[in-house]
Amino acid sequence: MESLSYVLDLAGTFVFALSGGMAGVKHRLDVFGVLVLSFAAANTGGIIRDVLIGAVPPGAIRDWRYVGVSLVAGLMTFYFPSALSQRWSPVLLFDAAGLALFAVSGAHKALAYGLNPVMATLLGMLTGIGGGMARDILLAEIPVVLRADIYAVAALVGAAVVVTANILHLSSIMGALVGAALCFGLRVMAIKRRWRLPIAGADRKRSTHTDTAVNPQPPQDGK
Amino acid sequence: MESLSYVLDLAGTFVFALSGGMAGVKHRLDVFGVLVLSFAAANTGGIIRDVLIGAVPPGAIRDWRYVGVSLVAGLMTFYFPSALSQRWSPVLLFDAAGLALFAVSGAHKALAYGLNPVMATLLGMLTGIGGGMARDILLAEIPVVLRADIYAVAALVGAAVVVTANILHLSSIMGALVGAALCFGLRVMAIKRRWRLPIAGADRKRSTHTDTAVNPQPPQDGK
Amino acid sequence: MESLSYVLDLAGTFVFALSGGMAGVKHRLDVFGVLVLSFAAANTGGIIRDVLIGAVPPGAIRDWRYVGVSLVAGLMTFYFPSALSQRWSPVLLFDAAGLALFAVSGAHKALAYGLNPVMATLLGMLTGIGGGMARDILLAEIPVVLRADIYAVAALVGAAVVVTANILHLSSIMGALVGAALCFGLRVMAIKRRWRLPIAGADRKRSTHTDTAVNPQPPQDGK
Repeated sequence: MESLSYVLDLAGTFVFALSGGMAGVKHRLDVFGVLVLSFAAANTGGIIRDVLIGAVPPGAIRDWRYVGVSLVAGLMTFYFPSALSQRWSPVLLFDAAGLALFAVSGAHKALAYGLNPVMATLLGMLTGIGGGMARDILLAEIPVVLRADIYAVAALVGAAVVVTANILHLSSIMGALVGAALCFGLRVMAIKRRWRLPIAGADRKRSTHTDTAVNPQPPQDGK
Repeated sequence: MESLSYVLDLAGTFVFALSGGMAGVKHRLDVFGVLVLSFAAANTGGIIRDVLIGAVPPGAIRDWRYVGVSLVAGLMTFYFPSALSQRWSPVLLFDAAGLALFAVSGAHKALAYGLNPVMATLLGMLTGIGGGMARDILLAEIPVVLRADIYAVAALVGAAVVVTANILHLSSIMGALVGAALCFGLRVMAIKRRWRLPIAGADRKRSTHTDTAVNPQPPQDGK
Repeated sequence: MESLSYVLDLAGTFVFALSGGMAGVKHRLDVFGVLVLSFAAANTGGIIRDVLIGAVPPGAIRDWRYVGVSLVAGLMTFYFPSALSQRWSPVLLFDAAGLALFAVSGAHKALAYGLNPVMATLLGMLTGIGGGMARDILLAEIPVVLRADIYAVAALVGAAVVVTANILHLSSIMGALVGAALCFGLRVMAIKRRWRLPIAGADRKRSTHTDTAVNPQPPQDGK
C-alpha cells in the first residue's frame, strides 16, 4: 500500500505538472515561471495534505523525485507546447488524470495517518483540488474548481471509493483503480457532455445564456 | 475554557461559512464552489493558527463538526439566498460576527499553547482575518481587510481583551464576552458610520472624493 | 551560524517589509492594510519554510522581533513614502536585497534541519520568493516571480552558494556573504540591463514587441 501510494503520487505529480506548465505557457510566463507553476500545480495539494496530517517535512519536500518529475514535465510543456496540444484541450485531460490520481493517493495517505473515514475522504478531495487551485490563484484567476463544473465532486467520488474499500477490507489496489477510473471518467464525461452543477442564483434566469454568462472567458480553452 | 473555546469556534465557523457562502452565491459559483467557499472562509483562519502553533491535525480537519457546520451554512446560502439577504448587506454582519468569535477563540487557543501575550493577540487577529482573506483570494480580489476599513483593528482589540483578561487572572468567560462584543461593536459601527483608517497617500488629495476613489467597486455590496 | 542566520533573517525581514509596505502604499491601502502587507511580504517565505521543515511555531510567530521589525518598516513606508521613493523604483531594490538575504538564511536553516543539499537549495529559493509571491497574491496580481524576469534564478544561485560552501566545509559566513552578493548583483543587473528569461511561446513572434506584450502594465513602476 505504501509503494502503491508512492507510484500514484508520482504519476499524479507528472500529469498535474503538465497541466500547470501548460497553463503557464498559455499565460506566456518565462521558463522559470512555467517551472514554478508546474511544481505548484503538482505538489501544493500533497504538501497541504501532509502539513495538515502532521507528515513533515512533506514528501514533496523531503524526496527530490517530486521536484525532478515536476521539472521534467515543466520543461516538456515549455519546449514542446505544440507537441502536447491537440484538438481537444489537453490541459483539461491532464487535469482530470491528476485529479483522479491525487484524490486516490490522498485518501490512502490520510487513512494511513489514522484520520476518520469522513475526513480521509475530504482530504483525498483536497489533495486532488489543491494543486489546481494553487495554479489558478497564482495566475490571479478564480479557481476553476469553484465554477460551474463537475470537478471536486469527481475527486470526492474517487476518494470515497478508496475509503469504502478500506472500511470493507477489500483490496486496496482494486479500490485505488476503481476510484481513480470513476473520478477520471466522471470528470471527462462532465467536460464532454458539459455536465454542470446547479449554479447559485440560476433560478432567477433560466435560459441557455446561463453557461456563457457564468464563463464568459473559459480560462482553459485556447486563449 | 476548553469547551468555551470550542463553542466559540463552532459559532464563528457557522457565521463565517454564511459569509463565505453568500460571497460565492454573489459570484454565481456552482453548489460545490459555494460549499468550498463556505468551508474556506470558515476554517482557513483556524487551520492556519493550528498549523502555526503546532496543533496538527488542526481541529477543523480532525473534528467532522467543523465541516458539518460549514456545509449546513453553505447549503443554506445556496438554497435560500433571498431569505438571508436583507436591506443592509448581511454578508458584512455575518463577517463581523465571525471576526469577533474567531479573534476571541484564536487568542484563547494561542494562550493555551503557551504563546506569549503579544503573539497570542496577533494570532487571535490572524484567526479572525484569515478566513475572510482566503474567501477574497479565492475570488481573485484584494482582501477587504487590506482596504480602507476598520477590520483587523477590531479583531486586534477583541483578541487583546482576551489576552489582558488572562494576564490579570480575570474570568476567561467575561474576557471572551467583552472581547467579542467590543470587536463586533467596533466593526458594525465602522460599517454604519463609515469609519475608516487613514489611507496611504491620501494626504496628496484631501477631498471627499477619496473614499470613492479608493473603493470604486465595493466587493460586498450588491454587485 | 545560528546568530548569523538570525541577523540575516531580521535584515531580510526589514527590507522585504519595506517592499511590501511600498506596494501597499502604491495600491492606496489603509494603514492596517499596509502593515499587514509589510508583515506578509516579510514573513510568509520564512513561515512557509519553517512549517515545511517542522520548525513550529515558526520563528516569525514565536519571536516578537520579526513583527516589530515589520511594523517599523511598514509605518516608515506609510508615513514617509516620498522620502523612500527615488528616481529608480526602490521597491525593486528592496525586493532584491530581501531576496538575497532570505535565500541565504533560508538555505542555512534548511541545512541546519538536516534537509539534503538539493532541497535545502530549493527551500532557500522558496524562502526568498515566498514573501514577494504572498505580497502579489494579496494584491490580486500574478506574482512578478513568474513573469519574464531573472528573479527566482538569482535566489537559486544565492542558496546554491550557501549549500556548496557547506558541502565543501568552507566558512559559512563567507558562503553567506558571497551568496547574498551574487544573488543581489544578479537581480540588480537583471533589472538594469533588462535581462530576461526566455518566454513561453516567444519563438512564435520574435520581435522587439515581445517585452511590452508580456508586461503591458509593469506592476512595480510608478502606477
